[in-house]
Amino acid sequence: MAEKRLKFHGWGYEGEGFDETETKALFGRLAERYPAASFARKPPPKPEDMRLPKPKLAVPAKLARFASDAAFDRLTHTYGKSYPDAVRTFAGDFANAPDFVVFAESDRDVAETLDWATGANVAVIPFGGGSSVVGGVEPAVGGSFAGAVSLDLTRMDRIVEVDRTGRAARIQGGIRVPALEAGLKPHKLTLRHFPQSFEMATLGGMIATRSGGHFATLYTHIDEFVESLRCVTPAGVMESRRLPGSGAGPSPDRFLMGSEGALGIITEAWMRLQDRPVHRASVAVLFADIYRGAEAVRAVSQAGLYPANVRLLDGNEAAANGFGDGRRAVMVLAFESGDHPVGPWMDRALELCRDHGGSYDATAAKKPDGHLEGAAGTWRTAFIRMPYARELVVPNNVIDDTFETAITWDRFRTFHDRVKAATEQAIQEATGQPGLVTCRFTHSYPDGPAPYFTFLGLGTPGKLLEQWQHIKNKASDALMQEGGTITHHHAVGRDHMPWYRRQRPEPFGLALAAAKKALDPAGILNPGVIVANQRERN
Amino acid sequence: MAEKRLKFHGWGYEGEGFDETETKALFGRLAERYPAASFARKPPPKPEDMRLPKPKLAVPAKLARFASDAAFDRLTHTYGKSYPDAVRTFAGDFANAPDFVVFAESDRDVAETLDWATGANVAVIPFGGGSSVVGGVEPAVGGSFAGAVSLDLTRMDRIVEVDRTGRAARIQGGIRVPALEAGLKPHKLTLRHFPQSFEMATLGGMIATRSGGHFATLYTHIDEFVESLRCVTPAGVMESRRLPGSGAGPSPDRFLMGSEGALGIITEAWMRLQDRPVHRASVAVLFADIYRGAEAVRAVSQAGLYPANVRLLDGNEAAANGFGDGRRAVMVLAFESGDHPVGPWMDRALELCRDHGGSYDATAAKKPDGHLEGAAGTWRTAFIRMPYARELVVPNNVIDDTFETAITWDRFRTFHDRVKAATEQAIQEATGQPGLVTCRFTHSYPDGPAPYFTFLGLGTPGKLLEQWQHIKNKASDALMQEGGTITHHHAVGRDHMPWYRRQRPEPFGLALAAAKKALDPAGILNPGVIVANQRERN
Repeated sequence: MAEKRLKFHGWGYEGEGFDETETKALFGRLAERYPAASFARKPPPKPEDMRLPKPKLAVPAKLARFASDAAFDRLTHTYGKSYPDAVRTFAGDFANAPDFVVFAESDRDVAETLDWATGANVAVIPFGGGSSVVGGVEPAVGGSFAGAVSLDLTRMDRIVEVDRTGRAARIQGGIRVPALEAGLKPHKLTLRHFPQSFEMATLGGMIATRSGGHFATLYTHIDEFVESLRCVTPAGVMESRRLPGSGAGPSPDRFLMGSEGALGIITEAWMRLQDRPVHRASVAVLFADIYRGAEAVRAVSQAGLYPANVRLLDGNEAAANGFGDGRRAVMVLAFESGDHPVGPWMDRALELCRDHGGSYDATAAKKPDGHLEGAAGTWRTAFIRMPYARELVVPNNVIDDTFETAITWDRFRTFHDRVKAATEQAIQEATGQPGLVTCRFTHSYPDGPAPYFTFLGLGTPGKLLEQWQHIKNKASDALMQEGGTITHHHAVGRDHMPWYRRQRPEPFGLALAAAKKALDPAGILNPGVIVANQRERN
Repeated sequence: MAEKRLKFHGWGYEGEGFDETETKALFGRLAERYPAASFARKPPPKPEDMRLPKPKLAVPAKLARFASDAAFDRLTHTYGKSYPDAVRTFAGDFANAPDFVVFAESDRDVAETLDWATGANVAVIPFGGGSSVVGGVEPAVGGSFAGAVSLDLTRMDRIVEVDRTGRAARIQGGIRVPALEAGLKPHKLTLRHFPQSFEMATLGGMIATRSGGHFATLYTHIDEFVESLRCVTPAGVMESRRLPGSGAGPSPDRFLMGSEGALGIITEAWMRLQDRPVHRASVAVLFADIYRGAEAVRAVSQAGLYPANVRLLDGNEAAANGFGDGRRAVMVLAFESGDHPVGPWMDRALELCRDHGGSYDATAAKKPDGHLEGAAGTWRTAFIRMPYARELVVPNNVIDDTFETAITWDRFRTFHDRVKAATEQAIQEATGQPGLVTCRFTHSYPDGPAPYFTFLGLGTPGKLLEQWQHIKNKASDALMQEGGTITHHHAVGRDHMPWYRRQRPEPFGLALAAAKKALDPAGILNPGVIVANQRERN
């Protein structure tokens, strides 16, 4: 059986990507903004042209059964899917490639790999979907290790057990979301957690990075869906009990969530599942601007209605996603239920929107299948196709990236304006010409939104990395300065470490470092992520 | 101003307790079950008759401003409110009294106390409401310390700042719930977290113990209401950012929640608040037995309706709380909202109850003020008065206690039957005659309920402690054996440590011990709770 092969230079699998219509629309939008530049498809880089260093390590006999040092495996496990990852890929720079890749098929394979690596002083970088946009999977571990291997979990991809009564399933960490959903469908169940990366993302990776998903309220992060975890550490297997709730000490699961492979490898989880939705309603509500829209999002978020979607797009984001002419902000509002018609919920939410100056097409709001053809559908398509754009824009010297955060409602307006201004100024400084910074809310809470910023600039060939880094630094400094979080759901990785360390309470950093030392005495697990690499004193 | 004085031998303040009618009803129920015994009010113990050891430590000059070694302060800070605490109080046994009590008024006072204690090798036991039922506040620290002091936080009782827009407030850890609610009322806000201990309980204590509150679904523990924490540790102040959500590494707040004073002292928190409810509906639904009722609770819990109350009482619990004749199980079902009428929510929940064989008074279900006169009101009064019973039953040699847990729906029936049977057998073994074991659900989740067991037996004077311990051991063993948690919201304390250590994944125990060592190098903070007291190797 011919398996689909991962694209090493962009999103998804080989052969997938923007079609001609999508490409034309993308380049058209860019040309409008930068009329002096020209934008065209460039031939993708070829694996054989990449500069791949000679491995520092040979595959040891005990791992030979499930390890590979094939060039293509090393290429596909060098980077995640961040902007600097793409730039370096197009530049042929694979200096930090893993020495080889371990494709673990069982907890035993994982334990053997960790045992060997502990003894051989080799860094182990866990690799799930490989969709990190924060440098989480790059084997950039410094010179103090004998080498670095990528530990690929995607062969641990089974749904082991389903509990229909409690709506839960025991699932291996390496399964990707599409396979997970396909496996749950016959049971009429769904995890219903879809980060933008869902086509690639694995369950263990989503848990380790506290990913943000489908639900814009209530079940925003994957955290709440985790019933129990099984995790292999150099100090042994850590497995929690399957419990609907507990108050027995600090939660062991919450301690692993967000540990990004620095404390152990999540190989299995009991996940809380949902009934598949059968009742739905969605509508697009227009507001004069993002501030008025934000007031409505706040009202809806504080009303205890828990919409599946209450995403707010500023004018430019809205236009780019197929809503309107860029002058007005749009709220994509949707309710769904596997149990009951959602009319009363939607009615009250729309009342609150009207109270805050929102307008909408009342007919569309009543359509039960609005999820496919309506606002949510438009949003969904644009959202899923987005990651394919990068391989087209990078060779055209476009700098495009996103960053995301969360802030309380009382500070939102100032926060938004200052972060946006700082990012705009940084683009001007870095590229010598104006860029574009737009904002949407990916998730919303009673006490504040999770704003998500997209920025765009036209860079200079050969200088893209440093130009991007300047913008990233200034934007991240602004997030810290204005009281936000360095990440709401993109995770920390290597890229966010400087700001994460500013954000994190200092004593908690000490506690984490001590805990890591207890679980991973040799410090081989994803060094430099979450816990500073002590050898490098970074 | 004359302040109310805490009762040292029972629940609440001096002068409070069961009136004659309540006492008669209580003794009447006991006499019905144990007709051979007689039950009567006994005079309460007098402070001056208690055996209080001479302090091992004098109050040092630097703490003199806010410390007290008065006998009454030492008495009120020796115990929590557990059954064995009451037995020892009535026996005059205060062997583990603190050497003195520190009444901290600021973070600085707390830090000075921890500094002094670290240097002087003195154990520090944080004391909030003092309502622990698991030995969480007893200075039973073994012989390796120079002494032990109780760190009372109740003078840190201010609401510092209110954010009406984001519905949050910055609140000191020592405030009790009634004062907290009174302070929020002018802002039309409420925390709406009422554990049974709410009259005594402090905010910091509730957070440190992951208390369970008013809401039977969704916001069951206090955890979700915590926006950020400020905590004083021997290694410095740990303060997290105020954020509606974050994905930046493992949550520092979740790490402190449930740490029960072993990692630091929670002195302040930004709490997420609610609008005060204006729309309400409540109804009592009858079921043939607890198993049928449980099926309905499961259906309602999985429907995404999020009732404020969906508590299920077995026949005996129901009768004891004023519902029916003991033959049928009762679900107390209630919805409330500060935003919208709750009719559609209640309608759907009742439909699900009918589908599962439930019956109810349809007129009562429609009453908007059902919360006071209806099912929820009956439940509420019985619930709040309960803790006052203990000082009456203990001197009558009655063994009465509760334990609580959580389990997934698929295992509930077997779990319930085996835990109940094990406890009944243990009462027979311990006391030589049958006792009573009843069950209710305090909270419910899509994947399982939180069953709460009450047991009753008639013990032997002078043997109550060992009889209770036998029952407690057998019940706790059964919880562990059948896959539950040793506590859903009563916390771990000293009493649950043996089972907590069985439940907790071993590597997580290593991580916690290492983290404690980093934050509390001298091991002075609540030794023996959550992290084993290394000096005692317990």
